[in-house]
Amino acid sequence: MNSRSIILLAHGSSDKRWCDTFEALAEPTLKAVSNSRIAYMELAEPSLNAVVHEGVAAGTHDFTIVPLFLAAGRHLRKDVPAMIEALEKATGASIKLSPPIGENPLLGQAIKDVVALQLAQSTSE
Amino acid sequence: MNSRSIILLAHGSSDKRWCDTFEALAEPTLKAVSNSRIAYMELAEPSLNAVVHEGVAAGTHDFTIVPLFLAAGRHLRKDVPAMIEALEKATGASIKLSPPIGENPLLGQAIKDVVALQLAQSTSE
Repeated sequence: MNSRSIILLAHGSSDKRWCDTFEALAEPTLKAVSNSRIAYMELAEPSLNAVVHEGVAAGTHDFTIVPLFLAAGRHLRKDVPAMIEALEKATGASIKLSPPIGENPLLGQAIKDVVALQLAQSTSE
Repeated sequence: MNSRSIILLAHGSSDKRWCDTFEALAEPTLKAVSNSRIAYMELAEPSLNAVVHEGVAAGTHDFTIVPLFLAAGRHLRKDVPAMIEALEKATGASIKLSPPIGENPLLGQAIKDVVALQLAQSTSE
């Protein structure tokens, strides 16, 4: 087999509460999309490195990384592409980097809905 | 008048492309919610400080800050509360800090929808 794996990539933090929030954010995707996982750039496990190596060992050769970032800064413009290049060399896998989720207009719509809820709570207090 | 103002708070970056993404993310909210603005913690304009002072000068005394952050780290647990305390002292305004947008389940649903689109694109290429 050679199915594509989706990797939801978060930055990572030594604060477990930070990672818990990302795991909750990832949960609907992990439930809906087969062969999808969460991975962290740094400071938390599982690392991107570990997730790609495990995927390759299980027979996956195509990966799409969807960054759980609202916008692209240095990490997504430089660090992650460098990590991908090294992983492709080390494993022979093909790894595509998608734009950060915040570049998709669906996120702006979700933010509008969240703000409407916050506003309703603020005014009812 | 004494209407409530919504402030969408982003971290800020010296990279204009980063700020452009946040302005696009904020746009649906700014169009839909009256008396709403975007502000940056640092490295970009307008600053939170400027937006609160301008709001107070225009007659607003109640602000709700909705952080355009996926999760709460040091900035939202320490730095922003300290900024709010100083602004409340300086202006007499009342400023509420909402949870980061990423703690709302609507964001996880939007991420799932974004990933489904990315996956459709990946497999059609």
